[in-house]
Amino acid sequence: MTEAVTTSLSPAAATRGHWQPLGLGQSKITGGFWAPRQLRNGESAIPSGQDQLETAGNLQNLRLAAGIGEGEAIGPVFADSDVYKWLEAAAWEYGRNPSDDLLKRIRDLTAVVAAAQREDGYLDSVVQLRFGDEGRYQQLVWSHEHYCAGHLIQAAVAQVRCTGDRALLDVAIKLADHLVATFGDGKTVDVDGHPVIEMALVELYRETGTTAYLDQAKWFVDARGHGIIKNHGHEPAYFSDRVPVREATSVEGHSVRAVYLAAGATDVALETGDTDLLDALKRQFEHMWSTKTYVTGGLGARWEGEAFGDEYELPADRAYAETCAAIGGIQWAWRMLLATGEASYADALERMLYNGFLAGVSLKGSEYFYVNPLQLRGGALADNGRSPAHGRRGWFDCACCPPNIMRTLASLDGYLATTGGDAVQIHQYAAGTIVAGDVTLTVDTAYPWDGAVHISASAPVALELRIPAWAGGATVNGSPVEAGTYARVEADAVDLVLPLATRVVGADPRVDAVRGCVALERGPLVYAVEQADHDANVDDLHLLPEASVAAEHVDGLLDGVTVLRTRGRSGTGHQPGWSFTPTAADQVGDEVDVVAVPYYAWANREIGAMRVWLPRA
Amino acid sequence: MTEAVTTSLSPAAATRGHWQPLGLGQSKITGGFWAPRQLRNGESAIPSGQDQLETAGNLQNLRLAAGIGEGEAIGPVFADSDVYKWLEAAAWEYGRNPSDDLLKRIRDLTAVVAAAQREDGYLDSVVQLRFGDEGRYQQLVWSHEHYCAGHLIQAAVAQVRCTGDRALLDVAIKLADHLVATFGDGKTVDVDGHPVIEMALVELYRETGTTAYLDQAKWFVDARGHGIIKNHGHEPAYFSDRVPVREATSVEGHSVRAVYLAAGATDVALETGDTDLLDALKRQFEHMWSTKTYVTGGLGARWEGEAFGDEYELPADRAYAETCAAIGGIQWAWRMLLATGEASYADALERMLYNGFLAGVSLKGSEYFYVNPLQLRGGALADNGRSPAHGRRGWFDCACCPPNIMRTLASLDGYLATTGGDAVQIHQYAAGTIVAGDVTLTVDTAYPWDGAVHISASAPVALELRIPAWAGGATVNGSPVEAGTYARVEADAVDLVLPLATRVVGADPRVDAVRGCVALERGPLVYAVEQADHDANVDDLHLLPEASVAAEHVDGLLDGVTVLRTRGRSGTGHQPGWSFTPTAADQVGDEVDVVAVPYYAWANREIGAMRVWLPRA
Repeated sequence: MTEAVTTSLSPAAATRGHWQPLGLGQSKITGGFWAPRQLRNGESAIPSGQDQLETAGNLQNLRLAAGIGEGEAIGPVFADSDVYKWLEAAAWEYGRNPSDDLLKRIRDLTAVVAAAQREDGYLDSVVQLRFGDEGRYQQLVWSHEHYCAGHLIQAAVAQVRCTGDRALLDVAIKLADHLVATFGDGKTVDVDGHPVIEMALVELYRETGTTAYLDQAKWFVDARGHGIIKNHGHEPAYFSDRVPVREATSVEGHSVRAVYLAAGATDVALETGDTDLLDALKRQFEHMWSTKTYVTGGLGARWEGEAFGDEYELPADRAYAETCAAIGGIQWAWRMLLATGEASYADALERMLYNGFLAGVSLKGSEYFYVNPLQLRGGALADNGRSPAHGRRGWFDCACCPPNIMRTLASLDGYLATTGGDAVQIHQYAAGTIVAGDVTLTVDTAYPWDGAVHISASAPVALELRIPAWAGGATVNGSPVEAGTYARVEADAVDLVLPLATRVVGADPRVDAVRGCVALERGPLVYAVEQADHDANVDDLHLLPEASVAAEHVDGLLDGVTVLRTRGRSGTGHQPGWSFTPTAADQVGDEVDVVAVPYYAWANREIGAMRVWLPRA
Repeated sequence: MTEAVTTSLSPAAATRGHWQPLGLGQSKITGGFWAPRQLRNGESAIPSGQDQLETAGNLQNLRLAAGIGEGEAIGPVFADSDVYKWLEAAAWEYGRNPSDDLLKRIRDLTAVVAAAQREDGYLDSVVQLRFGDEGRYQQLVWSHEHYCAGHLIQAAVAQVRCTGDRALLDVAIKLADHLVATFGDGKTVDVDGHPVIEMALVELYRETGTTAYLDQAKWFVDARGHGIIKNHGHEPAYFSDRVPVREATSVEGHSVRAVYLAAGATDVALETGDTDLLDALKRQFEHMWSTKTYVTGGLGARWEGEAFGDEYELPADRAYAETCAAIGGIQWAWRMLLATGEASYADALERMLYNGFLAGVSLKGSEYFYVNPLQLRGGALADNGRSPAHGRRGWFDCACCPPNIMRTLASLDGYLATTGGDAVQIHQYAAGTIVAGDVTLTVDTAYPWDGAVHISASAPVALELRIPAWAGGATVNGSPVEAGTYARVEADAVDLVLPLATRVVGADPRVDAVRGCVALERGPLVYAVEQADHDANVDDLHLLPEASVAAEHVDGLLDGVTVLRTRGRSGTGHQPGWSFTPTAADQVGDEVDVVAVPYYAWANREIGAMRVWLPRA
């Protein structure tokens, strides 16, 4: 065995790059906004997720592959991946909050996975049950075999880091060795239709020190965009296979596939010191962020193909903005931040985290949105299990999002802080503790409701504090600091103040879908107007441009939120007759109160009309 | 054999209702706007369509089912339907312009179809080849067996009306008798996932007088919306199966399915005198027209499920607006017009015909759009065979649209005029002749380029002339007439003047997708701005509100079109960086000339940015 190159407990334990992550044990959320969400994730979502995997048949597939019982595989070809994401979530959760019950669940399930693995390292219960050994890798474009392998590897790394158990890691190594032996130049030249194996293999390299895994990840990244993927019924763009990663100027196609690949490519660039590849990824991220990202940080404009649209194609009503795409976006932004040290990536991560991601899970923690639109019309027809018009759901036939949310919430502590140079960087502000070397930092804050962040250290320490680009007028210990940068301070007590003035934002004129509209933001939060707070029909509510916007914290509402209050004008309702005439756009109506709530909290009351973007009267 | 209840050559030979259609022999387009389009349809599209059906395997499937050769069925389950739509187109074309070559093609192909039919009347080559007799109707939700039967029946009726041949009619009767014997209360209670059989059976009733066909059509209409369709992987709305037709207040789901069903239900209401059903259909049409129809008359807002969206969900860029949906919309509007005599249906038909439908076929006549957006961005990624970013295509894997266009163009003469009361009604203005009883009318017009229509009659006759709702200031023989009604005049020479002032139209504030934008119209035509006519980037071109709009006919452009000229302001181009800020919506740019061409003519030059809706500077 070679030596591990890292011992970090972080979900992306980068060993090179600009900054190094702090592990879960070193960076710990203990209160404030996120702690109760993590608590519900651990107490409710993760246990009920295991029940859902049982009901849906995912666990049974693995048992059957392990020779326990008889039957056929059920569910989608990627069914195993949901189990592995759950195992990863459970491992991070155990790292946060160890319990014998959870450890037993993890160990029991790990034993089934190990037993399902074939002698030569291959593992995919659905393929084994449906097609046998000769069916391996016959339809890699759709079979998700590497995708499942990637999630298994990620779970295994989380497990060994958080529980110390090597059981799943042994499975992962055997599987990874099988992949290395099978795929590459002079071997099988093929790639999975759905990336994630790239990130996973780099992480396994970090855990084990085995450079073959890093090489294999690099090979998978570089193999894309050369026409390997064929006979798929989609254009190559769908699979991020139209152009090589190094030549791409934009993300395109299936959004989760695209950002998972980009995150894995960033890991490769970071660990190999490949600055050309990193520059390509910077270009792609910048283009995505400026032309294909919703104000919520949501990614993926199209239902068709669950895909990124064209530049500036960002419809509010039919936004797909899959929860998994926001998670992949967070993973990519985090890796770009580690690689470059640029504050804009931490800003992007924050926007995705508090909005596009968090809207994907209910306040109670165990009901989910697959699709996250920025507008829902009253009376919208619930025409599809993924349609937000149904409200959140406990599970999905394609259940990628729920366990993805679980693993993200359970490992959130890992995204808060890094070390680099002589300093500790704090990227996200959450009440908790950070241990960096001999120094322990305590962070006290009611962020995002309040912009005051108090940091006390056990000894004087150099801190680099992210000042979000929106936080003009921010101060550190009373001195002005520049927004959009890291503010450096050396002290054992720091008072950071991020002004949370409400922002009324418009959109670039090319974003056709929201022309003439504004959205409300405060701090990292994007707001939404819901029917539940209004008598006037939200479908054609207009904001008065001259009205002021007041913020008020309401403890009893939606688990406690700061609402925004302003004035608007109601519309005229549905008018029968042809909608397109010289005077059709004229609009009149009564003045009414308007209340906006954080977008992440929408659809936790009666489902009804919702708008992030409101027209101006 | 019972007696035919009609001898009309029309595509919908209604025998009751407000007005009666004139057949193809009685109403004939001879010049003007449409004649060259029909000529290209007959000379180029129809022959090349047969070649495409050969290449794609549709014809081979039927030959195999007829016992000619050996092999497996290829292509989609509804492959036969494209052959039948082609046969229908060929029949109407023969009616317009008889030729021995075309008649031989029709007869040869008809012989194959007849030979493929099973002894008991069943006919579906793909099901026969793939699943045998025991596979019949096992998956009616997706098998399209009734859908194929419907198109065969429509082709058979067209054939007997236009060629006098009964060969295909005999097949159709045998198949219809088989359906009557198989489906209904006390028999198999099931409906096809894709309507069209309803329209077809009513037409077969009209042709043969056999009331069992009308009864069967009524049964199929009434069976929907009661949960018969199951295990389909879609919500019932997709199949127009969520609520019974009589109770529905809106169209919903797959747009072609929805409007085909509505058109068939209208036929049933019309022939049975069922005013309750007709009232329900009026309500649905009105709701569709006021909340789910594009300014082009395009129907179907969503790529996902090729479906109608929610009320006012009408994105320009991702409009699906399938060409077949416009055709179904035309068929429905025509039947509503026959049933009610209300001018608004003829207005609707005209809007769909000149815009949403006609954009689906190239000026040369043999390349097609499946999807008809109202905006294409420059640099849009052609991510799908149906994507307009590819430009028009000669054929599709799912080739429903091309032969549907062919049959519509070849039978267009049937939609121009009716008789009713003591008068002849003219609904659409095209250069040609109309024979009503002993009187022959000659219509001379350069419409839609010029609003002057001269009608001369062989003897004085009562005419009712549709005055489009947009034609304020219209006159008949110098006297003002009311727009949106039929103007009655008794004369042997009539000068109708429809003022073609350019209209700058906005949209109801609920149509979020085009807020702050206007579209240009002139007469029945909706206009579009194409990159080919501009140096400035059309993606962010803005119109100057105060600029006048001038019309100019340009003979050499796009086979001769009247263009609209005005002034605009260019945009700032793509700006890197976050798009959503307090000042993001600010827009500046240079003043530029703007040229708009008829929407139907777009994408006949280099494919590039196109906009129907332009923001106002």
